[in-house]
Amino acid sequence: MEQLKKFIREVPDFPKAGINFYDITTLFQDPDGFDMALNAMEKYIRTKSPNKLVAIEARGFVFGAALADRLQLGLIPCRKAGKLPYRTVTEEYDLEYGTDKIQIHADAITSGDRVVLVDDLIATGGTLAAAGRLVEKLGGEVVGISSVIGLTFLPYEDKLSRYDVNYLISYDSE
Amino acid sequence: MEQLKKFIREVPDFPKAGINFYDITTLFQDPDGFDMALNAMEKYIRTKSPNKLVAIEARGFVFGAALADRLQLGLIPCRKAGKLPYRTVTEEYDLEYGTDKIQIHADAITSGDRVVLVDDLIATGGTLAAAGRLVEKLGGEVVGISSVIGLTFLPYEDKLSRYDVNYLISYDSE
Repeated sequence: MEQLKKFIREVPDFPKAGINFYDITTLFQDPDGFDMALNAMEKYIRTKSPNKLVAIEARGFVFGAALADRLQLGLIPCRKAGKLPYRTVTEEYDLEYGTDKIQIHADAITSGDRVVLVDDLIATGGTLAAAGRLVEKLGGEVVGISSVIGLTFLPYEDKLSRYDVNYLISYDSE
Repeated sequence: MEQLKKFIREVPDFPKAGINFYDITTLFQDPDGFDMALNAMEKYIRTKSPNKLVAIEARGFVFGAALADRLQLGLIPCRKAGKLPYRTVTEEYDLEYGTDKIQIHADAITSGDRVVLVDDLIATGGTLAAAGRLVEKLGGEVVGISSVIGLTFLPYEDKLSRYDVNYLISYDSE
């Protein structure tokens, strides 16, 4: 899938000096790029036979929603704390400095659900690992993780070692 | 489209006492509800022949992304200030107390673009009006606004009077 890289824009020094940001908006604002990425993600997800997708706010919603529509699956949003209106479950994850919290609705996953987590980019894996714990807390099983980009210079494998992880393209240095 | 209402959960007193929140997550976590909403939005959008969709963060991404995939259109994210990595244009809009800012990438819209704005819910119309100004600032034309819910007890018509507005279901009181 190396040809997908031409749709990704690299923005130096965002969100701060020294960080090279992989901008995926240039992928989904091009119908060909978006379709190519979705085709590959759809193919992977079908092999896992999930009955629900959990998408991570906010760019994960873009891929998760289109895939849920293609696969006729329910889309469960995983959001920053305080955004979901109904009863929620919460998990914390580490940031560079401090922690943050994400939630899903407590009735959105039920025992026996087979879930694929969808996001645009895997960096340290902290958010996805927290999303996985939320699914498991509610009795669901995480049968796979689908992402467009994997930053293989970051140690996501430590946090996601229990899961089957699929990404389409990788960057191995900052 | 009244039958769509069975997929919407009403949550009293969110985000604060006295507000009845229309929870749309129960719609898109049901494949039938999501498909029904997308079919109707797709039908409306096709009549406008846009070449791009602009989706409003974050729930607008859910509908905008699936529709962009169905219609093979570019999806342009409109986000809270500070989230987009590249060069942006910014507009301010009023909140109940104070103001907030939204942005789109400055190169995401070009002169002559025909744009439909996509969101999940129209309340006061302030965010959508600001998104419309962003598109126009870059030379695009807003040929329509597509939403799932319209809160017709709020005065959105003042702010969106210049636009063709379509929503699938409405609520006329709090």
